Amino acid sequence: MSSFAIPPDLIPAAALRHDGRRPDQLRPLTLQRGIAPHAHGSVLIGFGNTRVICSAMIEEGVPRWMKEQNVSGGWITAEYSMLPYSTLDRKQRDSTRGRIDGRSIEIQRLIGRSLRACVDLEALGQRTLWVDCDVLQADGGTRTAAITGACLAAALAGQRLVTEKKIKRLPLKALVAAVSVGVVDGRPVLDLDYPEDKDAAVDFNLVLNEHAEFVEVQGAGEETTFNLEQFNALIALGRQGVAELIAWQRQMLA
Amino acid sequence: MSSFAIPPDLIPAAALRHDGRRPDQLRPLTLQRGIAPHAHGSVLIGFGNTRVICSAMIEEGVPRWMKEQNVSGGWITAEYSMLPYSTLDRKQRDSTRGRIDGRSIEIQRLIGRSLRACVDLEALGQRTLWVDCDVLQADGGTRTAAITGACLAAALAGQRLVTEKKIKRLPLKALVAAVSVGVVDGRPVLDLDYPEDKDAAVDFNLVLNEHAEFVEVQGAGEETTFNLEQFNALIALGRQGVAELIAWQRQMLA
Amino acid sequence: MSSFAIPPDLIPAAALRHDGRRPDQLRPLTLQRGIAPHAHGSVLIGFGNTRVICSAMIEEGVPRWMKEQNVSGGWITAEYSMLPYSTLDRKQRDSTRGRIDGRSIEIQRLIGRSLRACVDLEALGQRTLWVDCDVLQADGGTRTAAITGACLAAALAGQRLVTEKKIKRLPLKALVAAVSVGVVDGRPVLDLDYPEDKDAAVDFNLVLNEHAEFVEVQGAGEETTFNLEQFNALIALGRQGVAELIAWQRQMLA
Amino acid sequence: MSSFAIPPDLIPAAALRHDGRRPDQLRPLTLQRGIAPHAHGSVLIGFGNTRVICSAMIEEGVPRWMKEQNVSGGWITAEYSMLPYSTLDRKQRDSTRGRIDGRSIEIQRLIGRSLRACVDLEALGQRTLWVDCDVLQADGGTRTAAITGACLAAALAGQRLVTEKKIKRLPLKALVAAVSVGVVDGRPVLDLDYPEDKDAAVDFNLVLNEHAEFVEVQGAGEETTFNLEQFNALIALGRQGVAELIAWQRQMLA
Amino acid sequence: MSSFAIPPDLIPAAALRHDGRRPDQLRPLTLQRGIAPHAHGSVLIGFGNTRVICSAMIEEGVPRWMKEQNVSGGWITAEYSMLPYSTLDRKQRDSTRGRIDGRSIEIQRLIGRSLRACVDLEALGQRTLWVDCDVLQADGGTRTAAITGACLAAALAGQRLVTEKKIKRLPLKALVAAVSVGVVDGRPVLDLDYPEDKDAAVDFNLVLNEHAEFVEVQGAGEETTFNLEQFNALIALGRQGVAELIAWQRQMLA
Amino acid sequence: MSSFAIPPDLIPAAALRHDGRRPDQLRPLTLQRGIAPHAHGSVLIGFGNTRVICSAMIEEGVPRWMKEQNVSGGWITAEYSMLPYSTLDRKQRDSTRGRIDGRSIEIQRLIGRSLRACVDLEALGQRTLWVDCDVLQADGGTRTAAITGACLAAALAGQRLVTEKKIKRLPLKALVAAVSVGVVDGRPVLDLDYPEDKDAAVDFNLVLNEHAEFVEVQGAGEETTFNLEQFNALIALGRQGVAELIAWQRQMLA
Repeated sequence: MSSFAIPPDLIPAAALRHDGRRPDQLRPLTLQRGIAPHAHGSVLIGFGNTRVICSAMIEEGVPRWMKEQNVSGGWITAEYSMLPYSTLDRKQRDSTRGRIDGRSIEIQRLIGRSLRACVDLEALGQRTLWVDCDVLQADGGTRTAAITGACLAAALAGQRLVTEKKIKRLPLKALVAAVSVGVVDGRPVLDLDYPEDKDAAVDFNLVLNEHAEFVEVQGAGEETTFNLEQFNALIALGRQGVAELIAWQRQMLA
Repeated sequence: MSSFAIPPDLIPAAALRHDGRRPDQLRPLTLQRGIAPHAHGSVLIGFGNTRVICSAMIEEGVPRWMKEQNVSGGWITAEYSMLPYSTLDRKQRDSTRGRIDGRSIEIQRLIGRSLRACVDLEALGQRTLWVDCDVLQADGGTRTAAITGACLAAALAGQRLVTEKKIKRLPLKALVAAVSVGVVDGRPVLDLDYPEDKDAAVDFNLVLNEHAEFVEVQGAGEETTFNLEQFNALIALGRQGVAELIAWQRQMLA
Repeated sequence: MSSFAIPPDLIPAAALRHDGRRPDQLRPLTLQRGIAPHAHGSVLIGFGNTRVICSAMIEEGVPRWMKEQNVSGGWITAEYSMLPYSTLDRKQRDSTRGRIDGRSIEIQRLIGRSLRACVDLEALGQRTLWVDCDVLQADGGTRTAAITGACLAAALAGQRLVTEKKIKRLPLKALVAAVSVGVVDGRPVLDLDYPEDKDAAVDFNLVLNEHAEFVEVQGAGEETTFNLEQFNALIALGRQGVAELIAWQRQMLA
Repeated sequence: MSSFAIPPDLIPAAALRHDGRRPDQLRPLTLQRGIAPHAHGSVLIGFGNTRVICSAMIEEGVPRWMKEQNVSGGWITAEYSMLPYSTLDRKQRDSTRGRIDGRSIEIQRLIGRSLRACVDLEALGQRTLWVDCDVLQADGGTRTAAITGACLAAALAGQRLVTEKKIKRLPLKALVAAVSVGVVDGRPVLDLDYPEDKDAAVDFNLVLNEHAEFVEVQGAGEETTFNLEQFNALIALGRQGVAELIAWQRQMLA
Repeated sequence: MSSFAIPPDLIPAAALRHDGRRPDQLRPLTLQRGIAPHAHGSVLIGFGNTRVICSAMIEEGVPRWMKEQNVSGGWITAEYSMLPYSTLDRKQRDSTRGRIDGRSIEIQRLIGRSLRACVDLEALGQRTLWVDCDVLQADGGTRTAAITGACLAAALAGQRLVTEKKIKRLPLKALVAAVSVGVVDGRPVLDLDYPEDKDAAVDFNLVLNEHAEFVEVQGAGEETTFNLEQFNALIALGRQGVAELIAWQRQMLA
Repeated sequence: MSSFAIPPDLIPAAALRHDGRRPDQLRPLTLQRGIAPHAHGSVLIGFGNTRVICSAMIEEGVPRWMKEQNVSGGWITAEYSMLPYSTLDRKQRDSTRGRIDGRSIEIQRLIGRSLRACVDLEALGQRTLWVDCDVLQADGGTRTAAITGACLAAALAGQRLVTEKKIKRLPLKALVAAVSVGVVDGRPVLDLDYPEDKDAAVDFNLVLNEHAEFVEVQGAGEETTFNLEQFNALIALGRQGVAELIAWQRQMLA
């Protein structure tokens, strides 16, 4: 099996990051359950100062086209939004602008795909799972915190369905979490905060499941390009980070 | 001066409400400061289970037309939104629908007018105050909780401007708060929760300032009409409720 | 029962208003029936120079959700719009801007609620009543003229349904009218025109029915606040004004 | 010069139309001046039961691009809309649908082009002429009534500019009017009402000026096609109709 | 019957146009079949440098209202768009602007009407014909090239339905083509390119079928007006041009 | 340096794909230059049956905010759209739907980022490069064909700027191309067509430059997840494919 070890020579042993973290260190993780009591499952997840409200609501029934085409199982829709006060300069609401901005659309599509790797739609039955991720405070990595929190919210909603005896088994294929990795000051680092993200030469988002299998990889050289070695180092670093996140998720759900 | 006493014969002494409150009793008030650290002032206000994130952000500069017309002082814009998971059945986002729903527009206009009675625009200087109210949990009275919390958030933002020595005196004309009153089961009650609101024959929202002066009165007979006596009883009840809210606001800001 | 008398000491006896009216005097009322012959009922109502086309059209059938939820009776929808040439500076059309402006939404919701106090939805049967109010000339009080005219148009449409033997009794609960009152130059006045409205310290809109019962009260201190005494004086003045309007409505329908 | 005579053999002498008119007869013309007193010029024009509010408002200044490109003279914008109660079945507002319907766009572009043949933009000076046409009652020929009325409204607005000594000469190149002609029951007829329009095999709209010169010709075989002879007969009939309309316009402006 | 000859005295014999054409000469015609292989019929048509992709796609079924109202036969929808790189200065996409521009709406309505004169909806059966015209390069006359090409694409799609034995006879009433004529430098000319179109005093678009019958005539004096003689000369010139286009269409379909 | 060799044991030697290709074989590449003559550079690129119009237009000047913030160099905007007839079932236009669909937004953001790795914005000067990619025929891999073609169109536009002596050196940092790789029937394959794409367990898009450096990696397990070995095999296969594409690009530009 694949190991999580990072080639030690890629990580300069000495220098710490601007906030005192080691290159391979996640930010402090925080979790508040039940932030939105009307949802079936909800959390306020924190990756350091990045805080996202993740809510999972379950609606009986599926979209009409699924019924018409006799598709079995459930449906998932994910929405992502930044609250106006989540950024240092106020972010205009999408509803005021009249349309969702491109970055948000890209992110909510990514969250949706990640959740489909996490949730067992067959076990969900003819139900629609609405997952909403609203960023309360943005400090880098909002999409990875959103995915990690959305998976927790979905799991909590699933537990509630089981408790309420609406379904028999937890509608979960595997825990899924996400983390960002990037090259900052020429060095691969894990879970970038905003000051790092702004200056990162390369920016990756990795989504993996609890079996260390990839769900999605998105990597872009923002201002530069990157070679195969850097690429492999980043992948390794990200895999280790996600493994830690999933261990924490498991603990939170216990 | 006007007194807050309610004609005692209008309030049936005995019966308590469905949640155990007396007719003239507010729901428990809760407040969490700094819910959105990037805002200049922010609170999570609770009127019982109704919980609203109220944020106040200050931007240097005013809209172009104010500069062109040489209008002195600052500008206020208020926005109100219900988060999708604030209601028992998920509420579709305005951005997905492509437009803000009529009720929200009505409410954010009310919040804006209330804030203009609260904030001293001259003292604010050439700045724009953005106030955002996002409902996290809706259980009746979201607009009155929003106004009461928005005033607190604006006051906190004003205090910060003073602390940062950007302005000399607190840009506050008077504390402002709001409460709902209504006729439920033939009896005037204060601060209706959702089950009461749903069944109320008459529904009032009162906005007053700390000098017991009216800022705004909105009263509607939802399914019925109301006479002058009922009208006066509701006004009296609401004035008392707002006075309690303002005492609490003062305590929270101390 | 409640009386319409205004405390005389509140009304400075001597001074007349800028257009020669006494403080408690309505503007001249005008009415042209059948302005839109394709509608079931239509009027061009005038409160002085404020003139509004009010039309009531009846459509067989109700919205789908009413049928699905087995709600009996009819449905009402009201729309309000200012024609581009109703104001001194041309008002851009909502359709050109791509959305209805906030003030119009607020007003059409108020008209709708007022009509629901006027029209007997059970007697209407499974029909939808569309009421359209288009301002031809705006000189203050367009929303109160619109409500007063909309009630007349709805009554005319109801009479026609009876005449055409589609329903047995007039689908009218009570006549409903509306008027504005405000504090201008420190004195309460009735039915403000635009120059008064622009300078009013306090601005109220009162909707009452023919039994002198309140349907809706909306009062706001635009630039200031108001105390209980002023509040009561304004309510008294407005009640008297609406009583006059309803007497006139009755005459017009006779 | 061109003559207005119609080849007599093309017009069946005997039969009258469903409303008693001769084939070459216009509907009764009606005009109410000053329908919208805030506009510089306004009329309520009637071609039989088709009634259109036409308003002309003049704004100082021209669009920014004209100034930037140093284009001299004024600018014209025309807007056309059907009021919801103008048709037998209520017509949904464009603002509710969120966009202007295709037919209205086509018509307002036609009105705009017709007005540019009528108004002398140089004489208008650096001003914008807004012309609004709102159909109060639709019974066929709304676009031709709108053009004919819009020209009158523009002329009235121009007269007012001269009277107010803002410009020296009337900003009018020539009077312009429009009429529809069509083939109904195999016979060319003038100024179709709705029942005729609905069944017309061929439908023409002709816009000409007071010198019997064409401004615009739009002809379409709705359900069929038409040959050169029919084409010429329709053109002749339409030219005669417009000549009558322009004579009437002249009288109305005298 | 009508002849195609143009009064010779109207055409100055000597002078050629800026591109060397005679006044009554079309631009070179080009056609590439199958440009969009997923469509049932598609062509890239060229009127000189004006090049338009015309595609015809057939969908089983008709709009719901047709079924509900038991209307027999098929349905046609036409859409017209200029690709951003079709003009010298990039044209903003309608989807980016959020709405289709007025000129495009006018043109796609014209294309739709022309196609309804061309296609036999009864023979089409309960099918919807989608015709899309996308301008790849614009050099004057895009709407006439679009109509001429759309008719070819529809004919090819019809042939394919017959070949696939889905219908028995070609769903074609008659070939239809369109051409522009205009007055340039005081002289009527056929098939204007962009430099001519820009300066044309009068601009006509004629749509006729293979029996020399008119489908639609649209003529406008852009900067001027035109008399009956000019009108007749333009009509004659356009009819000749369309006859040539239809002969070419027949050849292309053979 | 990194090598392009693929571990031979990962590619089943024997079996060919449904269209006869080897697993590591690109589809036939086609290119038509100058498809949109009004653009500064334009190509019709074909990856097999997938055909995309890629156009590059250069506008003098940059967005206002760049001038205001004194950002040097040029600006790039990319837009991606599927023409309605590009798919087997007609695809509704974004302009008709009123908004761009999420997938298109995601893709045009990817194209934009890829172009920023390709184009030298400093060498471009204060100019805006508009790149439009319109899919004429969709058969899998439209985004990778679009990126590969967009880079060619941008290079051609850059060559023209140099030829016209507007800039001195080609504004190109490096050639950039993209390819898809995926796991089909358990086996990694290169450049998936639509039937393969539809069934792919894993779907990757790789963008690299001519120095074999990564610009962007996007990989998603559509219905499944993937392990590190599969991941590495896909990366290797994609890198080889892009190298071939860049060799072809170089040839096309020579």
